[in-house]
Amino acid sequence: MFLMIEIDSDKPIYMQIRDQVIEGIASGQLPAGTSLPSIRQLAADFGINLHTVNKAYDLLEREGFIQLRRKTGAVVQVSGTLSDTWNERLQALMAEAYAKDVSSAEILQHCQLILGEFAAQHKLSNNS
Amino acid sequence: MFLMIEIDSDKPIYMQIRDQVIEGIASGQLPAGTSLPSIRQLAADFGINLHTVNKAYDLLEREGFIQLRRKTGAVVQVSGTLSDTWNERLQALMAEAYAKDVSSAEILQHCQLILGEFAAQHKLSNNS
Repeated sequence: MFLMIEIDSDKPIYMQIRDQVIEGIASGQLPAGTSLPSIRQLAADFGINLHTVNKAYDLLEREGFIQLRRKTGAVVQVSGTLSDTWNERLQALMAEAYAKDVSSAEILQHCQLILGEFAAQHKLSNNS
Repeated sequence: MFLMIEIDSDKPIYMQIRDQVIEGIASGQLPAGTSLPSIRQLAADFGINLHTVNKAYDLLEREGFIQLRRKTGAVVQVSGTLSDTWNERLQALMAEAYAKDVSSAEILQHCQLILGEFAAQHKLSNNS
């Protein structure tokens, strides 16, 4: 899996790392049990601060996407419950679309399209 | 429409204002053409900084949910295109759920439930 970091992005670097790890898990590129690079290595690879990578891994652990162990490092886990804020954030997004007079059917279609892509990528990852 | 501001929340106050205005539009409580309270009034009502309300209104205008005019103040507009980041944020949320092994069917059900609530509230607002 390739991580891409955009220094100029509005999104903080630790959130870029977090989101890409989650997309990697969702697309099946990072199945349960996969070891992520160590914090030190990732920081060195991208020339970024240890603290930034630490913040990303810490958040991923708190949200239940990885386990951090002293011996094995960061390991992907696939399972668990949705975070408390997930539904809140979904509600905010749905409200934005609804407030712009986008129809429910069209909003659901957007969701279905994205989920379909994950399913297709997952299948590809499983077959390779 | 009542605004509720939680001083202790992790969500910045300007985002609380923004999100609630959008939910008000989505639920039909703030139909197109509704005037929002002036920046000065809202700041005074909640004992918050003018700058904070200004930031919320400015964001709402940039995202196309309201128009700010010197004469009429902040007026709701319902229509327009989804923001550039909307699809990105939706993709990130879908990834989070998919990465936790929540099924597509269950994710779509969450979306449908929320949209159903907006539709019901909209109907209520129209009838009242």
